Amino acid sequence: NKKSLRERNAVMCNNALMADTYFNIGGEFGAPKKFPAHKYILATGSSVFYAMFFGGLADDKDVIEVPDVEPVAFHAMLKYLYCDEIALENDNVLATLYCAKKYIVPHLAQECIKFLENSLTAKNACVLLS
Amino acid sequence: NKKSLRERNAVMCNNALMADTYFNIGGEFGAPKKFPAHKYILATGSSVFYAMFFGGLADDKDVIEVPDVEPVAFHAMLKYLYCDEIALENDNVLATLYCAKKYIVPHLAQECIKFLENSLTAKNACVLLS
Repeated sequence: NKKSLRERNAVMCNNALMADTYFNIGGEFGAPKKFPAHKYILATGSSVFYAMFFGGLADDKDVIEVPDVEPVAFHAMLKYLYCDEIALENDNVLATLYCAKKYIVPHLAQECIKFLENSLTAKNACVLLS
Repeated sequence: NKKSLRERNAVMCNNALMADTYFNIGGEFGAPKKFPAHKYILATGSSVFYAMFFGGLADDKDVIEVPDVEPVAFHAMLKYLYCDEIALENDNVLATLYCAKKYIVPHLAQECIKFLENSLTAKNACVLLS
């Protein structure tokens, strides 16, 4: 068994156990990927999800279609919301920033921006005229 | 806004916002105290709550009566489940241990026992549990 809230939640990330909502992610990029989720975790981490699930006009769809977010980015956002994990790479940081801004998850967006700044400094983009 | 899972959840502890279940606690000790709670957090932290809310025989009661647990102990368990907080005192440790064993929350029970061992060594008082 797991001692901490984070460990317990990490197991629940992308886990159909007790899932009360589902997302079809990334239809624009290929075959959409399905993610199970728990409204409680999403709504406590994002005001957009809160409004979506608990707001006045919330309608109870079984599966929510999100074609414009990349699956790897949505999964990165889930990992942050479920267990504070920041797992950014060069090939997912822009898509993850897009997702974080879409769902208003400020700390995750800030981490993406920090990552972008560091990658710029580190690469020192090559100079044609020195 | 809250950066970590723990901070976000701490606010949800004993909070009616998004609550999907309620408990009447401690009727045996006086007027019962009402606690709002979130099935997701309880069920991920306790197999008894998991069975209660998601098991085969789960019935959807609005309010769950728990007359034999002391309110201060139930609140201590919620604080542990929602945000890893261990807040034990001499006057609640035994009741909290009772509650932790009732709902099978092993780490909280262990913390209670550690507290008791330490107080025993310090005070050399008599022990109700063997």
